[in-house]
Amino acid sequence: MRNHFVDRPAAGVVADGAPGRPLHVAIAGFGVVGSSVARILLERGDLQASLRLVAVFNRHVARKRVASAPETVAWVEDIDAVLGPDVDVLVETAGGVEPARTWVVEALRRGISVVTANKLLIAQHGAELAEAAALHGVQLRFEAAVAGGVPAINAIECGIAGDRLTRVGGILNGTCNFVLSALASDADSFDEVVGRARTLGYAEADPTSDLDGTDAAAKLAVLAAVGFGLELPLEDVRRQSIADVTAIDCEYAARLGCTIRQVSIADRHGATAVDAFVGPALVPLQSPLARVQGADNLVLARGQYGGDITLSGRGAGGEATAVAIVSDLLAVSRGERRHGVARWQRARPAPRPHQPYYVRFVVRDRPGILASFAGVFAGHGINVDAVLQQPGHPKLRLPFVMTLEPCAQEQAAAALVELATLDVHESPPVAFPIFSGGIHGA
Amino acid sequence: MRNHFVDRPAAGVVADGAPGRPLHVAIAGFGVVGSSVARILLERGDLQASLRLVAVFNRHVARKRVASAPETVAWVEDIDAVLGPDVDVLVETAGGVEPARTWVVEALRRGISVVTANKLLIAQHGAELAEAAALHGVQLRFEAAVAGGVPAINAIECGIAGDRLTRVGGILNGTCNFVLSALASDADSFDEVVGRARTLGYAEADPTSDLDGTDAAAKLAVLAAVGFGLELPLEDVRRQSIADVTAIDCEYAARLGCTIRQVSIADRHGATAVDAFVGPALVPLQSPLARVQGADNLVLARGQYGGDITLSGRGAGGEATAVAIVSDLLAVSRGERRHGVARWQRARPAPRPHQPYYVRFVVRDRPGILASFAGVFAGHGINVDAVLQQPGHPKLRLPFVMTLEPCAQEQAAAALVELATLDVHESPPVAFPIFSGGIHGA
Repeated sequence: MRNHFVDRPAAGVVADGAPGRPLHVAIAGFGVVGSSVARILLERGDLQASLRLVAVFNRHVARKRVASAPETVAWVEDIDAVLGPDVDVLVETAGGVEPARTWVVEALRRGISVVTANKLLIAQHGAELAEAAALHGVQLRFEAAVAGGVPAINAIECGIAGDRLTRVGGILNGTCNFVLSALASDADSFDEVVGRARTLGYAEADPTSDLDGTDAAAKLAVLAAVGFGLELPLEDVRRQSIADVTAIDCEYAARLGCTIRQVSIADRHGATAVDAFVGPALVPLQSPLARVQGADNLVLARGQYGGDITLSGRGAGGEATAVAIVSDLLAVSRGERRHGVARWQRARPAPRPHQPYYVRFVVRDRPGILASFAGVFAGHGINVDAVLQQPGHPKLRLPFVMTLEPCAQEQAAAALVELATLDVHESPPVAFPIFSGGIHGA
Repeated sequence: MRNHFVDRPAAGVVADGAPGRPLHVAIAGFGVVGSSVARILLERGDLQASLRLVAVFNRHVARKRVASAPETVAWVEDIDAVLGPDVDVLVETAGGVEPARTWVVEALRRGISVVTANKLLIAQHGAELAEAAALHGVQLRFEAAVAGGVPAINAIECGIAGDRLTRVGGILNGTCNFVLSALASDADSFDEVVGRARTLGYAEADPTSDLDGTDAAAKLAVLAAVGFGLELPLEDVRRQSIADVTAIDCEYAARLGCTIRQVSIADRHGATAVDAFVGPALVPLQSPLARVQGADNLVLARGQYGGDITLSGRGAGGEATAVAIVSDLLAVSRGERRHGVARWQRARPAPRPHQPYYVRFVVRDRPGILASFAGVFAGHGINVDAVLQQPGHPKLRLPFVMTLEPCAQEQAAAALVELATLDVHESPPVAFPIFSGGIHGA
């Protein structure tokens, strides 16, 4: 392999974007996203003056080699080879915390800017990495870490920087959105729908981190960092799995003028208190959250002055995610400095404001159940808003729903714990919040 | 009045955003938007290190004075006083082409960056102003010129800079969106609805430039400049007034699974050919274009790699627009350079691709009308897709609708000219395009 790192001018001379040679780009991790980045860099003639692909790192890289790439691109299996003095910016698309974190730390230390699609890395180590980037006078950018091709980070960080945000969130996981949409329209079982999502490529072989909210929580933490300037520990994001949702819940939600979505919401109270939630929630059919199709994503930001803005588009896929990365590379080539992210303060957890809830039971029916359930809620200071029961279900396995007037999440949870002890349940009761406030229906 | 321009350090030393004194901001035009900018600058303590309001220019400025403003703010009636060496950036919120253009040219010449909300100024003179800004090493920013608080310019220019855009557009005029929404839901007459919009503050006393597409065409030209790097002359934007729309059209549109919106679309073909349209169009009910509520705006961008993204939010209003301006001020304070807008090439007009059309007639009914109309369309090589006629209308003033299979705009127009010569019309026939392609239903 030709070593092309010896006969080039020293890196850094144009790291500030001054006209001259283009920014030298190395890609670490050459899967679907990494190879799409390479394709855009090689295809788009108008980018050649700004960005040049100089190296690709991957295990067994020989198998990954792109035939159309110029000979000047180095294909390497040694990460050190892409952290050399010829590289201005490292694109990290390997994913996962390690070894990605080690590479990124080393790149920043060596004066190499980093563009990453790694939500987990930024959610867990973004604060220290942003400080390292500032210390070494280089850039750390991560537009691709949230909502694929939707330019949410840029919009929040720059486009509405003039506002003071009180909420960030949206529909941040395409797998969940696909599963819940299909569950509502096809009335198949949850497992059948997940199986179909897997066949269609919308779900991983093990979709646990999608369904249980881990993936969306990391993205929500990234949005909170950018929108609030606060570091939101993942353990402070309250999570509920969408595996709790059944086709029956979709029916009842429809009767309430709603649909069920995996909603991610972080609300800031005062300067540093944040309540953050990822999980199934009822959202009104006319809400933008309800209208996100298939595997698309939607990002919502609420400002004190400008109200709500939403952004939507493809939440995943190699090309859309690669657009976000190439956009970040162009920002690095222009020498753009970031606004206010070098120091993230740690968020304090805050309780969720009072909110209405949907509670679904499946019981062996007998007289007095409703009265005893209502009594338990009353004992916890909760008013029942409505009781819904669709006909056509067997008495021995009868689903019905109670909606609760706005109450604290802890109140609802405590009532559910007490209700669960009653010997009538065929499956454990589940509760989902109902989002209905705000001009955008959330 | 205290002259505060004498005892300050020379401007420009921090125009590149280096830490030191904050950027000195002057506002020219102190109406709803200008005063909202001042309010955010004075209220937000966290902005004080970056931005300082130093002067406000307006006629009869004494009446506009904000009691809470610090004494260091100069209130002046002489534009020269806000173009002094103490000012780093001019916020232009006066509107209209002159004298705004003269002020902006002079500011740029004196090394003062400009942030403007002036869509007409940018649509008509953006290319020369961008060149002047580049020449003098200062910034020209105009996030507020399109869709108020929706950060569309930033998203297109930076967030998806890595893509190659083939379409920009959306719902760019809140007045039209309010009027058409109300027309569809209330079945009032067009004039009644416009009167109501005026009462509610959603329409100007003379809403002509909103209704006839002039306002949206200017915004579309700004989006085309940023998204395509092309200067789109306003006379090349084909325009149709929404005053052609009646409540009957809304009924027929609903029967077709659509609603009517003032749609603004610019499609790029190849490098520099653009077809641009602003006017009423049928859009499917499930399209994001159909779902824009009241006076909200939506911006759509379609990329070769990343597909469609949409952004929505408040399209007007002092505070939302002020957020866009303050966001631009923060970008200037960070010394951000723009990407690829210093030279806009002139767009060549392109014909609209073949598209289906909705054509509505109001006739004195008599036998053979349908056959003769169909014959005229056939003579122009156009296939009729469907004929719709709602019951309950008088024979002497009978509205009915023909939908046309995809054809050239010129074909449809020529057929309509010929049809209009037939002596059966109670009102002139009107045709609206039907937008139905694409993953976002447009």
